Amino acid sequence: MNKKVKWLLASLVGTSIVLSGCGKQDVALEKKVEAQTTAEETKAGEIISPHKDLNQEPIPLKVERIAENVVNVEMTAQITDIEIDKGYMYKAWTFNGEAPGPVVVVNEGDTINFTLKNMDPAIPHSMDFHAVHASPSKDFIDVMPDESGTFSYPATKPGVFMYHCGTKPVLSHIANGMHGTIIVKPKDGYPTDNEVDREYLIIQNEWYKYNDLDDMTNGVPSQVVFSTKALKEGDLNTNGDTFSLKETPLLAKVGDKVRLYVNNVGPNEVSSFHVVGTIFDDVYIDGNPYNHMEGLQTVMLPASGGAVVEFTVMKEGTYSIVTHQFNHVQKGAAALLKVTADGKDDGSAAAGH
Amino acid sequence: MNKKVKWLLASLVGTSIVLSGCGKQDVALEKKVEAQTTAEETKAGEIISPHKDLNQEPIPLKVERIAENVVNVEMTAQITDIEIDKGYMYKAWTFNGEAPGPVVVVNEGDTINFTLKNMDPAIPHSMDFHAVHASPSKDFIDVMPDESGTFSYPATKPGVFMYHCGTKPVLSHIANGMHGTIIVKPKDGYPTDNEVDREYLIIQNEWYKYNDLDDMTNGVPSQVVFSTKALKEGDLNTNGDTFSLKETPLLAKVGDKVRLYVNNVGPNEVSSFHVVGTIFDDVYIDGNPYNHMEGLQTVMLPASGGAVVEFTVMKEGTYSIVTHQFNHVQKGAAALLKVTADGKDDGSAAAGH
Amino acid sequence: MNKKVKWLLASLVGTSIVLSGCGKQDVALEKKVEAQTTAEETKAGEIISPHKDLNQEPIPLKVERIAENVVNVEMTAQITDIEIDKGYMYKAWTFNGEAPGPVVVVNEGDTINFTLKNMDPAIPHSMDFHAVHASPSKDFIDVMPDESGTFSYPATKPGVFMYHCGTKPVLSHIANGMHGTIIVKPKDGYPTDNEVDREYLIIQNEWYKYNDLDDMTNGVPSQVVFSTKALKEGDLNTNGDTFSLKETPLLAKVGDKVRLYVNNVGPNEVSSFHVVGTIFDDVYIDGNPYNHMEGLQTVMLPASGGAVVEFTVMKEGTYSIVTHQFNHVQKGAAALLKVTADGKDDGSAAAGH
Repeated sequence: MNKKVKWLLASLVGTSIVLSGCGKQDVALEKKVEAQTTAEETKAGEIISPHKDLNQEPIPLKVERIAENVVNVEMTAQITDIEIDKGYMYKAWTFNGEAPGPVVVVNEGDTINFTLKNMDPAIPHSMDFHAVHASPSKDFIDVMPDESGTFSYPATKPGVFMYHCGTKPVLSHIANGMHGTIIVKPKDGYPTDNEVDREYLIIQNEWYKYNDLDDMTNGVPSQVVFSTKALKEGDLNTNGDTFSLKETPLLAKVGDKVRLYVNNVGPNEVSSFHVVGTIFDDVYIDGNPYNHMEGLQTVMLPASGGAVVEFTVMKEGTYSIVTHQFNHVQKGAAALLKVTADGKDDGSAAAGH
Repeated sequence: MNKKVKWLLASLVGTSIVLSGCGKQDVALEKKVEAQTTAEETKAGEIISPHKDLNQEPIPLKVERIAENVVNVEMTAQITDIEIDKGYMYKAWTFNGEAPGPVVVVNEGDTINFTLKNMDPAIPHSMDFHAVHASPSKDFIDVMPDESGTFSYPATKPGVFMYHCGTKPVLSHIANGMHGTIIVKPKDGYPTDNEVDREYLIIQNEWYKYNDLDDMTNGVPSQVVFSTKALKEGDLNTNGDTFSLKETPLLAKVGDKVRLYVNNVGPNEVSSFHVVGTIFDDVYIDGNPYNHMEGLQTVMLPASGGAVVEFTVMKEGTYSIVTHQFNHVQKGAAALLKVTADGKDDGSAAAGH
Repeated sequence: MNKKVKWLLASLVGTSIVLSGCGKQDVALEKKVEAQTTAEETKAGEIISPHKDLNQEPIPLKVERIAENVVNVEMTAQITDIEIDKGYMYKAWTFNGEAPGPVVVVNEGDTINFTLKNMDPAIPHSMDFHAVHASPSKDFIDVMPDESGTFSYPATKPGVFMYHCGTKPVLSHIANGMHGTIIVKPKDGYPTDNEVDREYLIIQNEWYKYNDLDDMTNGVPSQVVFSTKALKEGDLNTNGDTFSLKETPLLAKVGDKVRLYVNNVGPNEVSSFHVVGTIFDDVYIDGNPYNHMEGLQTVMLPASGGAVVEFTVMKEGTYSIVTHQFNHVQKGAAALLKVTADGKDDGSAAAGH
């Protein structure tokens, strides 16, 4: 082919296609439009009017294994007051009345039959599990107010995954509280399973001005917080051969190897996850055993990113857990791990570092 | 050596050298200074006066392989209106009339003979390919208005690399549109080449207030967008044994393994690259086959960072491609992948997630 | 177990624990409270009153190896004027009168006996080495004004680690200048030790409005800078078999493989570390030999994150070192590496790219 023809061809194909703007597209569903109208009449930063006198009692997560590799999971979308700072109640859009929502734990290879009950009388909600292979336009679709939707999809990859409401504008739904973590336990475990003595789940998220999409889009977070989530003994792994997620206080015994499942659910900020006084022996990026790193002081978590980090505590004392982006610590992003001689809480005030 | 001597030595060498400020240095080239004066008389946020009536027709990228491992590449620096948001035309500083500029694809081991034709009548421009080994002060230097410059350098490492104008202030040149992606195909391919059915290139970049260096430096982006770039059949690999980059609509067939070459060209923001409804089977950081990760929900891309990500679509439907920093999705950073039974566009409206 | 019982159990354990707020906790130590009161009477952005006429002469770092695997390190906390921008003196809170503080280099397996002399008459300071295993509430505690504290802890993991003052509010102490880098040399070296010809240490940090915690928390940096740190010949490795950190000018010979130890000490921003004109042959994330990557154009550094990056310079010229978040380059984050035929400084002005 001669030069000229080649260049002509090049000119035909050298076009630039901007793909963006999809974040602003609307799906025309009658009921949805109606509900959103209600919502959109609300001024930025105000409580949506049908939410005003609403503070729905948290409904527990329902998880039931109905076959060897099949799990039924039922969650609610509901409007519930959450204390996000000392004395500051936020009328959150939540899963199950919690923000972050409850931790969900399944096994690699499970099929999840998922039901979302939307208890919100005003606006649609939905569920986007990062842990599954799904058709977003079919399996992650909006569930209308006061309705239920059931979906089924496989969880074929192990890891620490974010879940969140995927209804538009997604930023409003995540920033108002609709996020959480689903852990998919690896079929063959982690290479370090036998070394680990305790494990906890830590979730980082930001809060903005109440229901203020402009602040969520252009502002800085007003709070950045860590949460932990509990599981009952044995729930974490149906084989019963590993450990259970516990609530606060975060505790360990001198010499323990501690595993943290960590997840930064954003919605906007990245995290520089660090534990004061130690170095991570082992890190699995996004919680996948294949993505192994050693000796990290700090793990970079993208927005929605997860990790398994493991470290050994060599001395009694109080260890701060932070994002090393210290403007976020200033806004709350810190937790304390207490290490005692016997691994039990000595009741002492957690004198923080 | 006794303690005192050691400490004396230490005191002699324990100095602190701050290296910064180079970003503000000026190279004294007569013509350049003249041209910049013109530009600097322009108020922040205004169109440089010689650009005012300029909207240069896009000139196609020219690529010609002149020997087994030698490629001639010719590009232009030109002033061209680009629609960066619905109805918002931005008088962009561009490569070849596109922003991002056209994709360049070469093979690992190629020498690139590169010519930049600066069609901008007002200010100098230059080319910094991240894909090559070069002497920046010789090979990436300014080409004066209405002049051409030719340079030669090797592309010895495979990957997905950013290119950009490196003329000062670099931030102005990148933020006004002078960025793009060069792919260097690995000599031995990727381990997963045989599994991949389709491939696309996705580029993320931000826009700021028009030509406003203060907003670019201290503000938040006004738009964050994704673009795709097309190659004609066979161009991607001169051996013809792999796949071709295509334009929108982004399409795949149920069961396909899709490869995305991704590149976050900034200029300021990092990206948390994610595809809704799937998990990345394989990821190669910066596109280097050595940097292999598995099972990621989200890939962290630094400013200028690239990756190859591969995933399998299991169901028909529409899959959103986003950065999971959702304030940026709110500003446009989303694209749609349509998955159909036969891999052909069914013409349906892309009902977005 | 039937469904009902399972769900009841779930309801008992499905609680959400917000861990945050620890960043704001206070340790009630009489003297500390007193000192902080003095400090808190100062208006945001003002020099703390006892610092006003203070400009303490830099005290050299003291390092002495007292046994095969035991090193004594002595540092000061002191108030010293630092030029952070052309002609802009910042009355910094420092380690040893430098900001960043002096580089500390030890060997993997060393025990560090560390003494902090707090020469600050007004407020407590402390030391948090990311390189060690320690009890934060015992080993990283506040040293009161005009007092000394001595602590002992092991450095068991190789890498490039941040150190910083951990006294609350930590953000104030880091942002006012109390940060630096400690390198722990790997016992078995890096796989690429034999290929490396030169090595330097580059530290990135941000500055904010003077002592203005609100600006540090909610603002954007006013300066982002790179610093280098020197070691005398032989200091870097007590075996004398590797290379020495040198000061500016950063120099290399054509063909040299250059190693940079890099550390982003924040306090808030992540870094997209890049060297113009080259590609990193080898990268070790956080400086741990296990975390090996190849062919990166840019390394993502979380806040506090480190790396060893190695690259080969093929041509004479001047190579810019930047974070590719170019708003930060605009604020100063750039350095120059000069490559000459013989590796010696030819005295030419560093004509920057």
